[in-house]
Amino acid sequence: MAYETYGELSPQKDNAVLIFHALSGDSHVAAHNAEDDPGWWDVLVGPGKYVDTNRYFVICANVLGGCRGTTGPESVNPETGKRYGMSFPPINVADIVDVQRMLVESLGVDRLLAIIGGSLGGLMAMDWGIRYPDSVAGIAAIATGPRMTTQALAFDVVARNAIMSDPNFKGGEYYDQDEGPVTGLAIARMLGHITYLSLESMNKKFNADRNVGRKIDTSFETKFSVGSYLAYQGNKFVERFDANSYLALTLALDAFDLGSNRENLIAAMHRSMCRWLFVSFSSDWLFPEFQARELVDAAIASDRRVSYCAIRSDCGHDAFLLENESPVYGGLTGSFLHNLSLELGSVDNADGEGTKENIGIRKSPPKERVDYDSILSLIPPKTRILDLGCGKGDLLLRLKERGHDRVMGVEFEESLVLRCVEKGLDVVMSDLNEGLKSFTDHQFDFVVLSKTLQRIRNVEIVIEEMLRIGTRAIVSFPNLGYKKYRSQLHEGYAPQTDPKPGKKWYNTKDVRYLTIADFEEFCREKGYRVFRKVALNSESRQIVCARENENADVVIMVIGR
Amino acid sequence: MAYETYGELSPQKDNAVLIFHALSGDSHVAAHNAEDDPGWWDVLVGPGKYVDTNRYFVICANVLGGCRGTTGPESVNPETGKRYGMSFPPINVADIVDVQRMLVESLGVDRLLAIIGGSLGGLMAMDWGIRYPDSVAGIAAIATGPRMTTQALAFDVVARNAIMSDPNFKGGEYYDQDEGPVTGLAIARMLGHITYLSLESMNKKFNADRNVGRKIDTSFETKFSVGSYLAYQGNKFVERFDANSYLALTLALDAFDLGSNRENLIAAMHRSMCRWLFVSFSSDWLFPEFQARELVDAAIASDRRVSYCAIRSDCGHDAFLLENESPVYGGLTGSFLHNLSLELGSVDNADGEGTKENIGIRKSPPKERVDYDSILSLIPPKTRILDLGCGKGDLLLRLKERGHDRVMGVEFEESLVLRCVEKGLDVVMSDLNEGLKSFTDHQFDFVVLSKTLQRIRNVEIVIEEMLRIGTRAIVSFPNLGYKKYRSQLHEGYAPQTDPKPGKKWYNTKDVRYLTIADFEEFCREKGYRVFRKVALNSESRQIVCARENENADVVIMVIGR
Repeated sequence: MAYETYGELSPQKDNAVLIFHALSGDSHVAAHNAEDDPGWWDVLVGPGKYVDTNRYFVICANVLGGCRGTTGPESVNPETGKRYGMSFPPINVADIVDVQRMLVESLGVDRLLAIIGGSLGGLMAMDWGIRYPDSVAGIAAIATGPRMTTQALAFDVVARNAIMSDPNFKGGEYYDQDEGPVTGLAIARMLGHITYLSLESMNKKFNADRNVGRKIDTSFETKFSVGSYLAYQGNKFVERFDANSYLALTLALDAFDLGSNRENLIAAMHRSMCRWLFVSFSSDWLFPEFQARELVDAAIASDRRVSYCAIRSDCGHDAFLLENESPVYGGLTGSFLHNLSLELGSVDNADGEGTKENIGIRKSPPKERVDYDSILSLIPPKTRILDLGCGKGDLLLRLKERGHDRVMGVEFEESLVLRCVEKGLDVVMSDLNEGLKSFTDHQFDFVVLSKTLQRIRNVEIVIEEMLRIGTRAIVSFPNLGYKKYRSQLHEGYAPQTDPKPGKKWYNTKDVRYLTIADFEEFCREKGYRVFRKVALNSESRQIVCARENENADVVIMVIGR
Repeated sequence: MAYETYGELSPQKDNAVLIFHALSGDSHVAAHNAEDDPGWWDVLVGPGKYVDTNRYFVICANVLGGCRGTTGPESVNPETGKRYGMSFPPINVADIVDVQRMLVESLGVDRLLAIIGGSLGGLMAMDWGIRYPDSVAGIAAIATGPRMTTQALAFDVVARNAIMSDPNFKGGEYYDQDEGPVTGLAIARMLGHITYLSLESMNKKFNADRNVGRKIDTSFETKFSVGSYLAYQGNKFVERFDANSYLALTLALDAFDLGSNRENLIAAMHRSMCRWLFVSFSSDWLFPEFQARELVDAAIASDRRVSYCAIRSDCGHDAFLLENESPVYGGLTGSFLHNLSLELGSVDNADGEGTKENIGIRKSPPKERVDYDSILSLIPPKTRILDLGCGKGDLLLRLKERGHDRVMGVEFEESLVLRCVEKGLDVVMSDLNEGLKSFTDHQFDFVVLSKTLQRIRNVEIVIEEMLRIGTRAIVSFPNLGYKKYRSQLHEGYAPQTDPKPGKKWYNTKDVRYLTIADFEEFCREKGYRVFRKVALNSESRQIVCARENENADVVIMVIGR
C-alpha cells in the first residue's frame, strides 16, 4: 500500500484525519514542502490551510485496485510471479475501505478525528462511517451520493465498453504487449472529463476559440478546441493509468449502493455514530445536489448530527478540487474539523482559535434581537430545538451555551450556513417552502420559526410540518396590527413592517402580512392550540400586556395540537 | 432524394408544411394508412392530428448525407461506379437545406406555410428561415438551439473518435469488408442515447431492476439494466445506419453556428421574416432551455413575431417525440399552424375551426375584467403593445380585434402560454422577475402590467424595464388604501386584497401591497411622470373621481419618463 502522512500524531492519538482520493487520484494529497511536487488537494491540505497539518495528522493512501503504488491488477502476483491482470479479484468499496483501515491501525490510530472524501472518496468515507461507526468522530463527504445515478452508471458502462472492445485489450492480458488498450482507455477518460466539468464551465473554457483545435500529436479528432483538449487529456491519462485499474475501480464505484429509497438510506445512516458534513455543488451532474439531499435527509431522519451546504458553483463535479471554490468547501471542512477537535478536546484552543483567518472562527457576541430573550424563556432546559431560518445561528448558539445538546438549524443562504458551521452548529441548507419531509415525527420538542414566517410562501405546509416534527412550535412575526402600522395605512400608505433601513413595499423580502388576530384565527381554523403568546414592543423593548394586537409590533406564539 | 408526402396540396399551393427529421430519422414521419409501418412522429402528424394531413400538405425527406434513401457516403458515385465513402464531400446544414429546397420547388411549392423541425431538424428549419426568408410563413423550432453547446460538441467528438478508431473503419473505406466499424458506431449510439434521455427519465426507466442486465446477444457489457439497454440500442443501430453518415451528419451539426453572442444572433434572426414558435423542454440537456431563450431573445430583439414555451418535462431531449408530452408541444404546433393558415386565409375556417378539439381553439368571449375597458381606453389606436403577465391573452385579443397589429405578451404559466398561442397571439414564456433584457429600447409604445405588480418581487427592475421598452407603462394594481382594507386593518385583521375566494394572507400568490399614494411616491423617487390615473371601484364598477386612495380598490396608472 502506498501512503503519505502529513503533520504529527498527537500523544493522545486523537488528531488523525484520513483523506480518500477520487477515481484517478493517489496518495500525494499535498506537497510535503516547497520543493515537492504539487498535491492534488494543495488548496485544502497543508500547514495553516483549512486542513491544517500543523494541527492534524493527515493520512492519504492510494486505493486498493489502483495503479499508483497500492496493489492492483498491474501488480505482480507473488504466487505466480506474473501481473494479476484479469486474475485480480473483483473488489468493492468495502474492500478498498478495509485495506485503508488496516493502514490506519498500523499507524497506531484507533479512532480517527475525521475522514474527508470527495466523489469516490466520499463513498469510501460513508462506507467507513457506516461499517465502523465507533472508529471515526466526523465525516466530510463532498460531491458524492448514495450511489451512481443511472446516467453516471451509463457513462461508466460506455467507458468500459470502449476499453474492453479495444483490440489491444486482449481480455485484460495486455501487459506483455508493446501497447495496451490505450485508445479505449483514452476514450473512457474523455468521457470522464466531460462528466467532471459542467455545461457552463465547458462553455467558458472552450467557446472563445471553439473552432480552433490545438495542434497536438494525437490520432484523435482535433477540429474543435474541446476536442483537442479531450484528445490531450485522453493521451496523457494512458501514460499514468492502467486500463484494468480503471475497470476494477469503476465497477467498485458502480456496485456501491447505500440504498435506493429513503428507508434503506435511513437504515444505513442509522448505523453511523459520527457527525456528518455533506457538501454538494449546484452544477455537479455526476453526483447531483439531489443525491446529497437524499443522504442528508436520511441522516436527519436517523437523528444523526449533520450539516449540509449546497454550494452555488458553475464548475461542475470538479468544483471540489478547485481553488476558487475553496473558501466555502474549505471553510466548511476546516470549521467542521476545528469544532470536532474542540468537542473532543483534542486541540488546545487557547491560542489556536481566532488566529486562523481561513477557518474564520468568530467569537464576537451575537447582536441581540428583541425576541431572542423571550424565545429562550419559553423553552425549558434540556429540550431538543430545531430552528427554521436560523440565520447565522445566534439563537441556536445561545441555546447550546445554555446546555441544550440537541439543537439544529435549517437555513437557505449559503453564507449563513457557513457561519453556523463555523460556530460548531448542526445546520442544513434547505428551502423551507419545499417542505421538511426529512424530519421525523416528534423529532424535536420545539420547532422555532423566528421572524421568518413573513418570508414564507407555503405557510400552511410549514406550520403543519412544524407541529409534526415538534411537540410545540414557536412562531414569531411582525404584527401588522401594531398601531403605528394602522396609522400608516390610515394616512394612506402601506405599513412599513420591515425594520431594515430602506426596505419598502417594493424591495422588502417579506411576502406575508398578518396581525396577531389573523394568526389566532388561522390557528382556530386549523385546530391548533395557542399555549403562550408573548407580545413585544421592540421600540420600548417591553412586553406588551394589554391590547396586544394594537400595542405590539412583534409577537411570539407557542402553539401545538 | 427519398421523400414522402401526406395530404393534398391546395389549389392555391399555400398549405404545404415541411418537416425536418433529426440526426438518425428518415422520410417516414407518419404512417400513410392503418397497414403502414409506424412513422417517427405519428403522434403529431396525420388526419385529424395536430399537424392535420386533411388540411395540410406535409412533406418529409431524408437528409442529404443520410443513409435512408437520399444520397450519402454509402451511395454509389455514378462517376466512379463505387460508393462515395470518404470521398463524399463535407456538407453543412445549409447544403442539407438547399437540397430540401430543391425538392419543395420540384413539388410546385414556392412558399411553405410552415417548417417544423426538432433537434437537428430545428437547426435546418432556422437555417431555411434565415436564408430564404420569403419562402416560409412560419417556423416551429423544437428542442433546438443556436448551436451545439460545448458539452454536446464534446460528446460528438468522443463518438466520432470511437468510430474512427475502430480498426474496421479503415479510413471510411469499409464497404467492401464483411463488417464495418460496428463497435465504434454502437458506442457512438450508446453515447447518443444517454444524451437523448434525462437523468430523471433514466432513473425511472432503469432503477427498478438496476443490477439485472437483460440477456441479449452482444459483446458489450450487460451487467446493469441500463448497460444491456445501451448494448441493445447500439447493436440495433448499426443494422440500419451507416458510420460515414453518422460522421458526416454530426460534423454538419457541430459546425452549425447561428452566432455565439447576442449581436450575432440578432443579426441572424433579423434576416428572417416568418413567425416563429420555439419550444424547449426543461430536462433537455442536449439543447438546454437557455439555448432556446437565446434564440427567442434574438427574435424579440429583431422585432420578429415570436412565441415561446418552455415545457416542464422530465423526459429529456426525446420529449419532442413522445406521446405523453404531445398535448403541449403538439397543441402549440397545431395552433401555430392553424393561426398561420387563418392569417394567410389558406384554410377555410367556416367549419374547420372549433371542431378540432386537439387543437383546442376556443371562441368563447373572454371574461370581463373591470380594468380592461379602462386600459383599452388609455391606449390610442395603432400603437404597439406589450402585455406583461398577459394570462390567457384576453386583453391582447381585444387589442388585436381593435386593429393593433403589433401586440405581444409575456407569461410565466405554461397552460396560459398555450391558451395565448391558441388565440393566435405572440407570447413568450418568461419570469418577469428575471428581467426583460431581450426587448430593445422603445420597442413598444405601451407596456402593460395589469394586476400583476402585486405578484412581482423585483418591482424596481420591472418598472424600469417597462419604461425602457415602452414610451409609456400602464400599471394596474389593487389599492391597499381602499377604505374597506383600511377598516379591515382597523378591526385588527390584515386587509384581504386578493379577490379570489379562499385566498387569505397565508395562501395568496400576492407578495406586494401598496396604495395609490405609495406608487405615486415611488414614481416621484424614481423620477417617473404620472400621465394618467384611472381609479376604479370594482364593487360598483365605477370610475372613482374623488379621494381615489380611499375610494378605489383598483387603480390604473400611465407613467413615463
